[in-house]
Amino acid sequence: MKNKINIGIVGFGVVGSHSAKVLTENKEYFLNKTGLEIEIKKICDTDWNKKRIWMPSEKQITTDFNEIINASDIDIVVELIGKENPAEQIIKNSLKNKKSVVTANKFLLSTKLFEILQLSNENKSYLGFEASVAGAIPIIKSIKEGFLSNNITRITAILNGTTNFILSSMTKNKIEFDQTLKNAQNLGYAESNPSLDISGMDTAQKLAILSTFAFHKNIIPDDFVTKGIEKIGQLDIEYAKQLGYKIKLLAFAVKENETIELSVQPALISENHPLSSIEDVYNGIYLEGDLFGKALFYGEGAGGYAAGSAIISDILDIGKKIAADIYLPEKFYMEENLKIKPSDEIISRYYLCFTAIDEPGVLAEISKILGNNGISISSVIQKEENPKQAVPIVILTHQTPEKNLKKAVNEIDKLSVIKKPTQIIKIE
Amino acid sequence: MKNKINIGIVGFGVVGSHSAKVLTENKEYFLNKTGLEIEIKKICDTDWNKKRIWMPSEKQITTDFNEIINASDIDIVVELIGKENPAEQIIKNSLKNKKSVVTANKFLLSTKLFEILQLSNENKSYLGFEASVAGAIPIIKSIKEGFLSNNITRITAILNGTTNFILSSMTKNKIEFDQTLKNAQNLGYAESNPSLDISGMDTAQKLAILSTFAFHKNIIPDDFVTKGIEKIGQLDIEYAKQLGYKIKLLAFAVKENETIELSVQPALISENHPLSSIEDVYNGIYLEGDLFGKALFYGEGAGGYAAGSAIISDILDIGKKIAADIYLPEKFYMEENLKIKPSDEIISRYYLCFTAIDEPGVLAEISKILGNNGISISSVIQKEENPKQAVPIVILTHQTPEKNLKKAVNEIDKLSVIKKPTQIIKIE
Repeated sequence: MKNKINIGIVGFGVVGSHSAKVLTENKEYFLNKTGLEIEIKKICDTDWNKKRIWMPSEKQITTDFNEIINASDIDIVVELIGKENPAEQIIKNSLKNKKSVVTANKFLLSTKLFEILQLSNENKSYLGFEASVAGAIPIIKSIKEGFLSNNITRITAILNGTTNFILSSMTKNKIEFDQTLKNAQNLGYAESNPSLDISGMDTAQKLAILSTFAFHKNIIPDDFVTKGIEKIGQLDIEYAKQLGYKIKLLAFAVKENETIELSVQPALISENHPLSSIEDVYNGIYLEGDLFGKALFYGEGAGGYAAGSAIISDILDIGKKIAADIYLPEKFYMEENLKIKPSDEIISRYYLCFTAIDEPGVLAEISKILGNNGISISSVIQKEENPKQAVPIVILTHQTPEKNLKKAVNEIDKLSVIKKPTQIIKIE
Repeated sequence: MKNKINIGIVGFGVVGSHSAKVLTENKEYFLNKTGLEIEIKKICDTDWNKKRIWMPSEKQITTDFNEIINASDIDIVVELIGKENPAEQIIKNSLKNKKSVVTANKFLLSTKLFEILQLSNENKSYLGFEASVAGAIPIIKSIKEGFLSNNITRITAILNGTTNFILSSMTKNKIEFDQTLKNAQNLGYAESNPSLDISGMDTAQKLAILSTFAFHKNIIPDDFVTKGIEKIGQLDIEYAKQLGYKIKLLAFAVKENETIELSVQPALISENHPLSSIEDVYNGIYLEGDLFGKALFYGEGAGGYAAGSAIISDILDIGKKIAADIYLPEKFYMEENLKIKPSDEIISRYYLCFTAIDEPGVLAEISKILGNNGISISSVIQKEENPKQAVPIVILTHQTPEKNLKKAVNEIDKLSVIKKPTQIIKIE
C-alpha cells in the first residue's frame, strides 16, 4: 500500500497559505493519524512577492499551473483560486488527468457541480468540496452520508460570515449599514469589494450546492430569488427587536410533496429560533428530515484555518482512498419530478414598514388595500409622532403569497401619503 | 457490481422496529438514492407476541440469532439488543464470519470499542456505530472524518435525552426531581428502571466512545468520575437562575498538552453558552479544535426514528462499500503519551450550597475554612430568613483543585451550625 500522497496547490491566498502551513507543520501528526505522508510538491500563484503567513521553499514555487495539473507525480490538486477562470479549466483538466481535486470554489460549483462530479466519476477521481459551504462545518458530508437515510425537507441557514457580522454588529452597536460595512472592512471581515457577500450571492451559491445534495436536483442560483442586506436599516432592526425578532440573511429551502421553494433574503427570525443566537462571523445550518427530525450545525464559516480544516480533512479522506487504491463511485440520484416553485407563489409572513404622512385615515387606507388583496394583518406598530411628518408604520402580515403582497404594496406605494418605497422583509 | 445487500436484525424493540419499518417502506427510495436494494432477511427477538409499530412477515421471524450470524447470505448484522450479553457474542461472531455490523450498543462499545474495531479490521468487515452516541447527530463521522485534520481539544456535551428532559422540566415547571422523573416515565421519556440515565452512566458511556476517537486513546467510563442528577433540587435550579446559569448534565473532556481530563456531572452553565438553550430530549455537542475553532451540533438524541436515521445511514454507507467490493482499513492512531488527569487535580469553579443555622459568624467561619484551603470566593448569596433556622448560603468559588474543595467542604460539614451535607456543583 502506498502511503505517500503528493499534492499541488493552485492559488495561494489566505486559505491556501494557512492550509499549506498546517500541512507542513502537522505533517507528522497527519502521518501518525492516517498513515499518510502528505507532501506539497508545488504551489502555484501569480504573485510571489506578497508576504503570507507561511512561505514555501523556492523548489515548491511556480507561476504556471500546468506544472501541477500535468505533473505525473501529483495525486491531488487543491484549487483555491476561486471564481470561474482559470479555476474551471484547472479542475476539469486535473480530473481528466486522473487526479483528484479538493476545492473551496462555491462560485464555480454552484453552477457546474453536477457536470464536474460526473467528470470525476468518469475518471475515477475524487472531488472534495466540503470547504465550499460553511467553512469547517462538515455539512456536505453530513447531508450526503450522515443523513443519507433521510428525506430532507427543510434547510434554513446562515451561510455568510460577512453579512452575519454586519447584521450582528448593526444590532449590537446601533450603527447604520454603510458605517458598519466600513468597520467590517477595517477588521478584515469584509472584502474591499464586498458585493458578492452583501448582495446575498455568496449565500445563494452555497444554498445551491447544499440543495443539490439535500434535494437531489441540480439547483443553481438563477433558480431562485436572492436579496441582499444593503437596504436593512436601524429602524427595521429596532422594530424587529420590539416584536421579538432579529434580522439575519437567511438561505431557505423547503420541500413539500413534489415542489421545492428556495430563496436567499434578509428575514425576521424569532429570538427563540436556534439560528437567532448565531452571531458575528459564525455560520449555522438548521435542517429538518423525515427521520432525524430537527438538527442544527454551527461553527466558523470562514477564515484560513476554518477553511483549511475542511480542505485538509478532504485531502486526508481522499488520500486514504488513493493510498488503498480503491474507488467508490458516486451515485447521482435525481428527483426527476421535483419542481421549483415560482417565487410569486411562495407563501410567507411579512414585515412591512411604510413611510407615511401622519394624517387621519392613512392606516385605514393601507389596511383596506392589504385586505382587498387577501392579506390579513397580525400586528401593527404606529407610534405617536409629529403630525404632518412622514412616520414609519410597521405591519406584520399573516401568511400571504408573494404575488398578492407585491401587488398590494405596489398600490399602497402610489398613495400620495406614502413618502418612500415600502420596506418588505420576510418573516421566518 | 452487486446491488443487493441482505441484512439481519437482532433485537426488535423500539429502534429495531422503527428501522425495519423505514427500511421496508422506503426501500425504493433507498434503491434510487444509493443503487442498493436493502433486504431484511431475518429479524431475531425472543418475544414475538409484543405488538410493534411494524411487524415482519412470518418468514422473516426467528428466535435464534445464530440463524442470522451464521447465515451465508447475510451481509450486515444489525445488533440492537444492547447491553453486554449476548450482544458481545453476536457482534464478535458476526465479524469473525466476515459480516459487517451496525450497532447502537453504547454499553458494550464504551468498554470494548477498540477490541471490536480491531476484530472488524482483521476480518475486513465494517463496524457502524453512529447510533451509539447522540442518536441521529452524525458526530462520530464528524469527529473521525469531517474534523480529521484537527487536534480536538475540548468536548462539552449533553448526551442523554432523559436527564436533559428532567432538568429542563424541573426548571420550567418548578417541580422537584422525584415527581418530574415520574412525569417523564409517564410520557415515555424515562424508562421504568431509569438508573443508567439518572446516574450519568449512559452519558459516561457515550463520552467514552466520543473521546476514544477525539483524543486517540482507549478511554472507558471507569477512567473518570461520573455523577448523576438525583441530588439536584429546585433550590439549586433557582439559585443558578438568579446567578445567570442553568443546570445541565454535562459530559466534559479537555485536552491540554499531554493530559486529558474527563468527567460527567451536573453543572452550572452560563445562559450565554450555546448548550444552555438545548432543552427537553435534545442532545448537543460543543467541540473545540485547533483548526475549526468552535462548533456545535444539536439534534434528537433518542427515539425510534432518530436512532433509525443513524442506523440506516450506516447500513447504506457500509452497503455501498460492500457492493463495490472495497475495503478501507481503519487506522488506529493512539496518543501513547496522553495521560488521564486524576479527578482530584481537576481545577474548576464550583457552586456550593451550605445549609447553615442563621447565626452571627457562620459566613465568616465558612469563608475562613475556604480561605485556609486556598479557595477564593467569587460571589455569595445569603438571604434574610427566620433566624435560628437552617438557611441556604450559596457561594460561587473561583478556580480551585477538586482536592482542596473536598477537603474544605469536609471540614465545613463538621461544623455544628451546618445541618446538611453541602451541595457541590461544578461551574462550566
